[in-house]
Amino acid sequence: MKATHIEHIGIAVKSLDEAIPYYENVLGLKCYNIEEVADQKVKTAFFQIGQTKIELLESTSPEGTIAKFIEKRGEGVHHVAYAVEGGLNAALTEVEGKGIQLLDKQGRKGAEGLNIGFLHPKSTGGVLTELCEKGN
Amino acid sequence: MKATHIEHIGIAVKSLDEAIPYYENVLGLKCYNIEEVADQKVKTAFFQIGQTKIELLESTSPEGTIAKFIEKRGEGVHHVAYAVEGGLNAALTEVEGKGIQLLDKQGRKGAEGLNIGFLHPKSTGGVLTELCEKGN
Repeated sequence: MKATHIEHIGIAVKSLDEAIPYYENVLGLKCYNIEEVADQKVKTAFFQIGQTKIELLESTSPEGTIAKFIEKRGEGVHHVAYAVEGGLNAALTEVEGKGIQLLDKQGRKGAEGLNIGFLHPKSTGGVLTELCEKGN
Repeated sequence: MKATHIEHIGIAVKSLDEAIPYYENVLGLKCYNIEEVADQKVKTAFFQIGQTKIELLESTSPEGTIAKFIEKRGEGVHHVAYAVEGGLNAALTEVEGKGIQLLDKQGRKGAEGLNIGFLHPKSTGGVLTELCEKGN
């Protein structure tokens, strides 16, 4: 597996409307896309900075993962996503072979058409970690 | 202020010795430096991935910020650092003028000779945020 860069940092927020002005007006980034990922029960806002995106995540349901995360830990960094080359499924299989617990055995579609797969934070030093690759 | 890229992601770990093998053997990164920052009571390990560094942080004292962070929240992402251009102190003054609470009114020396300043997570949507610039 070759991880090339930090593709994005996922940040749980209570409200995109309240969070976006900080990223735009204080950090000077531009929100270039807002997208709903229905099966993950989130609405996401994207900002590009260098090679990396900031992905703000607002839950669309009180039962959603992001709502539960915020209830337990408050707003903050939810996950870190590494761009990989050479096939996402191959990367997931490889890390599993090294003893990492997977949340996704196979890649699935995420926001922005990426193929994504999550590693369990128990295996990754407490950091919910996503591997991702551009979709075909 | 111009933020150009994510300079590093700071990750609180209980033990560098236990955490480094995950980054090296699973993600395939290379630890290129270990450095102690005495006044912050941390020992740090660095990995480069694209434009960004992963900075693992182990407390050297039970009274240190990182030890207290882990006690309260467990291991995980501790802070996100944005590289800025145009002067760190100017950037800190600018964001303070926009209502952001600063933890450092002036830049100070961080690891790797960077000038760094922290913004209070209460002002930044729960993400402890560092601005940094290469030292002269």
